[in-house]
Amino acid sequence: MPRRIKSNMIKLITLSSIVAVAAIGSGLITYKLHSVPKKPELNLQKWWGIGEKPKEEDTSIKIFNIDFNDTMIHDLKQRLKNHRPFTKSLEGIQSEYGINTKYLDKIITYWLDKYDFKKRAELLNRYSHYKTRIQGLDIHFIRETPKARGLKVLPLLLLHGWPSSSKEFDKIIPMLTSKRNKYNFVFEVIAADLPGFGFSEGTNKPGLNPVQIGIIMRNLMKRLGFDKFYLQAGDWGSQCATHMVTMFPDEILGFHTNMPFSSRPVSAVKMLLGSLAPDVAVDSRYVDRIYPLKKLFSYLLKESGYFHIQATKPDTIGVALSDSPAGLAAYIVEKMGVVSNRDQLNTPHGGIENLHLDDVLDTITIVWTNNCIVTSSRIYAEAFAWPEVNIIHNIPTPVPTAAINFKYEVLYQPDWILRDKFPNLVSSNTLDLGGHFAALQTPQVLVDDIFSATAKFLDFNAKKNR
Amino acid sequence: MPRRIKSNMIKLITLSSIVAVAAIGSGLITYKLHSVPKKPELNLQKWWGIGEKPKEEDTSIKIFNIDFNDTMIHDLKQRLKNHRPFTKSLEGIQSEYGINTKYLDKIITYWLDKYDFKKRAELLNRYSHYKTRIQGLDIHFIRETPKARGLKVLPLLLLHGWPSSSKEFDKIIPMLTSKRNKYNFVFEVIAADLPGFGFSEGTNKPGLNPVQIGIIMRNLMKRLGFDKFYLQAGDWGSQCATHMVTMFPDEILGFHTNMPFSSRPVSAVKMLLGSLAPDVAVDSRYVDRIYPLKKLFSYLLKESGYFHIQATKPDTIGVALSDSPAGLAAYIVEKMGVVSNRDQLNTPHGGIENLHLDDVLDTITIVWTNNCIVTSSRIYAEAFAWPEVNIIHNIPTPVPTAAINFKYEVLYQPDWILRDKFPNLVSSNTLDLGGHFAALQTPQVLVDDIFSATAKFLDFNAKKNR
Repeated sequence: MPRRIKSNMIKLITLSSIVAVAAIGSGLITYKLHSVPKKPELNLQKWWGIGEKPKEEDTSIKIFNIDFNDTMIHDLKQRLKNHRPFTKSLEGIQSEYGINTKYLDKIITYWLDKYDFKKRAELLNRYSHYKTRIQGLDIHFIRETPKARGLKVLPLLLLHGWPSSSKEFDKIIPMLTSKRNKYNFVFEVIAADLPGFGFSEGTNKPGLNPVQIGIIMRNLMKRLGFDKFYLQAGDWGSQCATHMVTMFPDEILGFHTNMPFSSRPVSAVKMLLGSLAPDVAVDSRYVDRIYPLKKLFSYLLKESGYFHIQATKPDTIGVALSDSPAGLAAYIVEKMGVVSNRDQLNTPHGGIENLHLDDVLDTITIVWTNNCIVTSSRIYAEAFAWPEVNIIHNIPTPVPTAAINFKYEVLYQPDWILRDKFPNLVSSNTLDLGGHFAALQTPQVLVDDIFSATAKFLDFNAKKNR
Repeated sequence: MPRRIKSNMIKLITLSSIVAVAAIGSGLITYKLHSVPKKPELNLQKWWGIGEKPKEEDTSIKIFNIDFNDTMIHDLKQRLKNHRPFTKSLEGIQSEYGINTKYLDKIITYWLDKYDFKKRAELLNRYSHYKTRIQGLDIHFIRETPKARGLKVLPLLLLHGWPSSSKEFDKIIPMLTSKRNKYNFVFEVIAADLPGFGFSEGTNKPGLNPVQIGIIMRNLMKRLGFDKFYLQAGDWGSQCATHMVTMFPDEILGFHTNMPFSSRPVSAVKMLLGSLAPDVAVDSRYVDRIYPLKKLFSYLLKESGYFHIQATKPDTIGVALSDSPAGLAAYIVEKMGVVSNRDQLNTPHGGIENLHLDDVLDTITIVWTNNCIVTSSRIYAEAFAWPEVNIIHNIPTPVPTAAINFKYEVLYQPDWILRDKFPNLVSSNTLDLGGHFAALQTPQVLVDDIFSATAKFLDFNAKKNR
């Protein structure tokens, strides 16, 4: 063979090999990213209570009443009146360094003088509250049956996040249980407090991550006689629910979420790649909810200090927060404000005025009276400490899913990325209003979407079963 | 020209161009990384006090006495006794989720029953304390002249970090002011509280970052009549001092640091590249202080929640910490423990038993009595918000510098990287003991190193001036 041809052939073979290796490599990466792990075998009756699991379990369902008692109120007010002097916000600063203490002062004064503890408890008690023991933990929930007759009644479990409780849903419960034009169904609502949140007992054992909480919530529904049900959730509730629809796809008839998110690695890669062509990756109207990523990361960095400390040292930060009601209020108000309107850090209220102060104080009072800031904050640590969480995150779910994206929700993914996790995304709406606490901030909009999504769930399931 | 030759020439030219562009590119990057920005012009008399700068400034130096008064002690003890029930640590968990509350209980009991407030204040007052107004802020400092005669007296400014104050140096002050074999010099010690820390006033204006604090500290030394002086520092004090030796190289005769760090971008690149060949980058005995980077980042991530929240929302977290002494103690004890021995998270004390409890409680009591957790925490936010900080970080200093690396210091850089910032690194020692609070944990070792380093500073300066 002439030397030149030989040399050219070697070049050709080398080049082809490089191309082939690159192709196989990227193929392998794509395959690896899309490959679905095996569902881990999980103990569905794991014991989270103190001590050993007893031979006979107490499966009773007890009526429960929320009580803001006088001893608690007196002690709380003493502590509030006796709070140490706040450090003044810096000159010209509103909420950019955290809570504005002049504004906080107004909130504390309202909590002390205007917030009507007894009336608020009475309002919370307008629904039927219960407790029952699941896997060793007393779980608190609201159960409201619809007043309307002659309609299909669909069981709907509502799951909240941090620092909330079932209280977050008190505006939407009556809307969900009431007849509505055009729809031949109505909901029976179960709104549960996650273990360690609100009036639900926390565990004394490590490992109660969102997967395990999902199992407890599923077992709660079984206890109440619901072998199949619908789910609505946001924040950590949506994380737990996302695991539930993955673990129990045959038991959940539809999943509506106001914090839709695919945590599959392939979705992260797509979000990164999307930054090369944002207008292709996302509807141009919503590009600025993700891109430029630098802006998103800067926002997340600025606002995730609480997340970082709760994910690493929840027991430390909890000591001060559980001992100082002013400090607990500052911590919760700042966070609830930012996620209700992140563009208002340059105002004294930092976004919190998008919510009703009584709702915010209900939330804080519930955390305070149950002394549950540590047990609820630990979910951040548990969510990152156990491999089962990531494995289940990486398994798509066949359950029909509906996403609603409010304007100031912390994270946003376009549908084509959401479908990595939720291939049966039957509904997706993106709004130019609202924020993270949708049930408090825009209850009517949220409920409208739940009804229309559920109609689609019914269609989807009817077709599937045909 | 025959086509083959032409084609080969084109190939050659193309290849040469690629090589040339790559060479120029990496040359440019290297040049860019090594290029030194111009020193920014800074106002050395910026006013940090309330309102406008007065025409006549008060330049008096007033004697000051530390007082833990009865009202404060009574109120503090009431709050400690009245703390809300701690949440129990999880089963089998020591300090992995943050402070162990059973252990915290012991600390609170000691603070209440055994810690002798009056005696501790008396001990702190064994040194001469003063306050003077610099740029509108009352700055507190200790000034101790040596008892020894017939020796050169060298002025030495000691700068602490968070959550400390000049108290951190109370063990080393007498060692520094006492004659020592083999050395013909001794120190006159000025140990200052950074503004917003300890007994020094905080500002009400944004922007008091480590560069600006460095200016205040330099003006303090000028006020005391020291136009030239030596510096010793750790933690944020070391950051301020690093800026001082960059801004005022002619005024600082030598810089001894127990948290040496070059924040120049070129140093970060070197640390990253070093992970390709750790044994080349670092003395094999100390490789595990940096590499694998994954382990370092995991440690930093786990331990930097407090840093993250203080750098973004200091005003929020400060409300609870300033209102709850138990919460403040938990927060400070956890952090001081980890950096004293990061390998003891699996113990109930989490590392804090490497320090004397009375020293730790002095620190906490000083923060408490001055209600300065917010003003001191704001340094984390200010350090990242102003471009001047990064510019000055990127300028090397000619000041002779000595580094001492204790085992559990948070960050470690080998000398060849330190020299990016400190080309005149005249001394560097790496020890297999000690931690972040060297003056409290290993005072004798620290002082030995300060003396031997200062002898080298004297040599260096003598040669320079010859």
